[in-house]
Amino acid sequence: MTGGTRRNRGKGVFSVSIARIVICGAGFGGLAAARAFGERLSRLPPVGELLLIDKENYHLFQPLLYQVATAGLSGPDIAIPIRSILRRYPQITVRMDRIVGFDLEKQNVLLENSSVGYDYLVLSLGAVTSYFGRTGWEEYAVGLKTLSDAHRIRAQLLLAFEEAECAEDPGRRKDLLTVVVIGGGPTGVELAGAIGELTRHVLRRDFRHIDPTKARILLIEAGPRLLAQFPEKLGRIAERRLKSLGVDVRLSSRVQDLGNGSVTLAEETIRSANILWTAGIAPHPLAAALPVPRDRSGRLLVLPDLSLPGHPNAFAIGDIVSLPNVPAIAPAAMQMGRHVANLLTAELSSGVGPPENRPAFRYRDKGMMATIGRAAAVAWIGKAVFNGPAAWLAWLGIHLVFLIGFRNKVIVLFQWIWSYLTYRLGARIILRSEEVASPTRRKPSTSSSTEG
Amino acid sequence: MTGGTRRNRGKGVFSVSIARIVICGAGFGGLAAARAFGERLSRLPPVGELLLIDKENYHLFQPLLYQVATAGLSGPDIAIPIRSILRRYPQITVRMDRIVGFDLEKQNVLLENSSVGYDYLVLSLGAVTSYFGRTGWEEYAVGLKTLSDAHRIRAQLLLAFEEAECAEDPGRRKDLLTVVVIGGGPTGVELAGAIGELTRHVLRRDFRHIDPTKARILLIEAGPRLLAQFPEKLGRIAERRLKSLGVDVRLSSRVQDLGNGSVTLAEETIRSANILWTAGIAPHPLAAALPVPRDRSGRLLVLPDLSLPGHPNAFAIGDIVSLPNVPAIAPAAMQMGRHVANLLTAELSSGVGPPENRPAFRYRDKGMMATIGRAAAVAWIGKAVFNGPAAWLAWLGIHLVFLIGFRNKVIVLFQWIWSYLTYRLGARIILRSEEVASPTRRKPSTSSSTEG
Repeated sequence: MTGGTRRNRGKGVFSVSIARIVICGAGFGGLAAARAFGERLSRLPPVGELLLIDKENYHLFQPLLYQVATAGLSGPDIAIPIRSILRRYPQITVRMDRIVGFDLEKQNVLLENSSVGYDYLVLSLGAVTSYFGRTGWEEYAVGLKTLSDAHRIRAQLLLAFEEAECAEDPGRRKDLLTVVVIGGGPTGVELAGAIGELTRHVLRRDFRHIDPTKARILLIEAGPRLLAQFPEKLGRIAERRLKSLGVDVRLSSRVQDLGNGSVTLAEETIRSANILWTAGIAPHPLAAALPVPRDRSGRLLVLPDLSLPGHPNAFAIGDIVSLPNVPAIAPAAMQMGRHVANLLTAELSSGVGPPENRPAFRYRDKGMMATIGRAAAVAWIGKAVFNGPAAWLAWLGIHLVFLIGFRNKVIVLFQWIWSYLTYRLGARIILRSEEVASPTRRKPSTSSSTEG
Repeated sequence: MTGGTRRNRGKGVFSVSIARIVICGAGFGGLAAARAFGERLSRLPPVGELLLIDKENYHLFQPLLYQVATAGLSGPDIAIPIRSILRRYPQITVRMDRIVGFDLEKQNVLLENSSVGYDYLVLSLGAVTSYFGRTGWEEYAVGLKTLSDAHRIRAQLLLAFEEAECAEDPGRRKDLLTVVVIGGGPTGVELAGAIGELTRHVLRRDFRHIDPTKARILLIEAGPRLLAQFPEKLGRIAERRLKSLGVDVRLSSRVQDLGNGSVTLAEETIRSANILWTAGIAPHPLAAALPVPRDRSGRLLVLPDLSLPGHPNAFAIGDIVSLPNVPAIAPAAMQMGRHVANLLTAELSSGVGPPENRPAFRYRDKGMMATIGRAAAVAWIGKAVFNGPAAWLAWLGIHLVFLIGFRNKVIVLFQWIWSYLTYRLGARIILRSEEVASPTRRKPSTSSSTEG
């Protein structure tokens, strides 16, 4: 056995040694690991059982989150119950609970009211929105990492137009009809493009006192171009495309300060009732609290097999991991999850040598893509770059393939076709906080504990 | 002109007298009135303009609300943006605002921060959950009238199973796996049936430590039979069908008291973490505050033309109205809305005699129906009663026809087919209150102001 001591459990007549694997977080990495474990464990003698812990009861398909924020999809379209995904693997137990910390020495995951021991640990905690340590900024600019964020942005945007329709004061109306997206990465580009579509097409004929097509949309990027991770050409194409949607793209423009309804740039201060933040992410605070070396951005410096230095039975995968040339995107997290599942099931079924002999994780680059509104996308696959309708169709197809659940695929596809043909969006409803008030026996909490 | 003074507005070269009609509430009655006005006004010279006010931006298809509460549908599937429904009627303006009262003498609708004058008023305020004046009961038992209620019930039910899966204490686990539905009308019957399906089929294989099929479901009805408004035979059929789903139906059983997690009946006190209330509705508090005679249940005693006594330019429609032999159901509200629209557009286009000569409202009974889980329903159309799969198919078809929006019809139909074939539900996600936190510039409020 590498690392931890196996717990002995009575199983039937014979007492068999079963390893307990705990995965923390049901994002792309954690879920890919769980499914790979599930497939492999069901073909082995009873050597391992798995517990997956997440604070939500659903896996969130984050790449389409911006469409929930812009009223194209509803939450359940991209949020799939974890239990339902994993129901056919009898070795897997799912637990909805809040993780508060880890004891790597005693091999315990600390939960809100209890703790769980493990033989092997897989940390798939994901990233959270980061405001670069600027306190208070989260009050002024909503991020887009959780379903909560997406619902808040949707309510804020739609309410701004409702309020503008009734506003008497022209200054107030102008603030309400100004949207500022901060951060020109894929999320910012997709969000600004979708807001452009929303105002230019979807809401166009719905108001009597305001003209939504006159709404001002700004995309602020500190660097010299959009989509910095992509080849330069694609950044230029995205910029052109956003400008044709009426988005005011500001490059090399750093946000100096944020206030309640105001964004201060070097050149001017913009008043806006809708400030959205996609400029930074950071590893989950629970990962940052581990006694493990980290890189400058706080991500964990793992060994080549993805285990934590000094803890060969604990692994980290996904956005909390720092590896050269591996981007913080869903495909990389999924590959890491499968790597750990393969490595551990091999060890469990046939015994192991020393940790040094474990295979190293190898990232296989499958490319990156982003959409910019209607029938436009940029993609970068291998050495080739694509854009235009072909890239957009590829984007649609790939996202449908990876979205889990046949039901969700059909519903998302139908809504895409519907809004493409009619310029209408299906989830234009404003849910307010009291709409989903927590049942009394669980207190709502503002901390986020897993990437789910 | 009957009633109010017309406001004069400059229109083009000629100053034409345009009547201002204000509809309060975008439920079934208000929306039917608005659509009928929109159709008729667009074919007339400019004689009238219409303002529709609702505190939400969506029309809620309440008959399917119990399916949102039981995770079969998501909110946007049955909540359609009001602006989008009415966009093609240029004479109609939609305003999302909170109504706080009415000044029938000065002909003003009082809003949170302003007021709106009217020549004609149509009150379509709808009903709210009533706990028969028992203070505190709303803390212990959630009603089902709004999208907020449905999301709260869904989160509460799904969380109960999640918590039961982790619970160590058998007593606590039992409470969590007990659901009490109070009220044996159509909503209570449909809700209990759907919860039966959820626990017996949908969640069956998803847990490792609990058996959801063993969950205890009770339906408590104070009267001697279920579906008191329906013919007796259908009440018996519903009862049998619910029992076959494992629902413990208690007739002639009055709730003596409610507490935090307990329901006290004459024969026993039941501990339950999921107490749902469908036992009573009352007219909206804004209707109850009007200086107009009311019946014993607080509904307005209107004149035969649906106008308020002494206020011939103010009308009331839907669930706030007391009329003999007219049930508080959607078709009646819609018929009333169309009656008022017809009556007023006739008056506006051709002048009027005295209010006494106005046509009286005539309710055309199209029947009533309720579903009880999978492939079962009861229907009562004219003198005929139906049940079984044929009634269920009729129920599906009629609800699809009346659900507004092609997109919504397709999505709801697909989800029904999907869950029928697979025993899976698509909206099994737990949204917590912070998930849709209100934007800071509007304070969340707990009062409900329109039937929308």
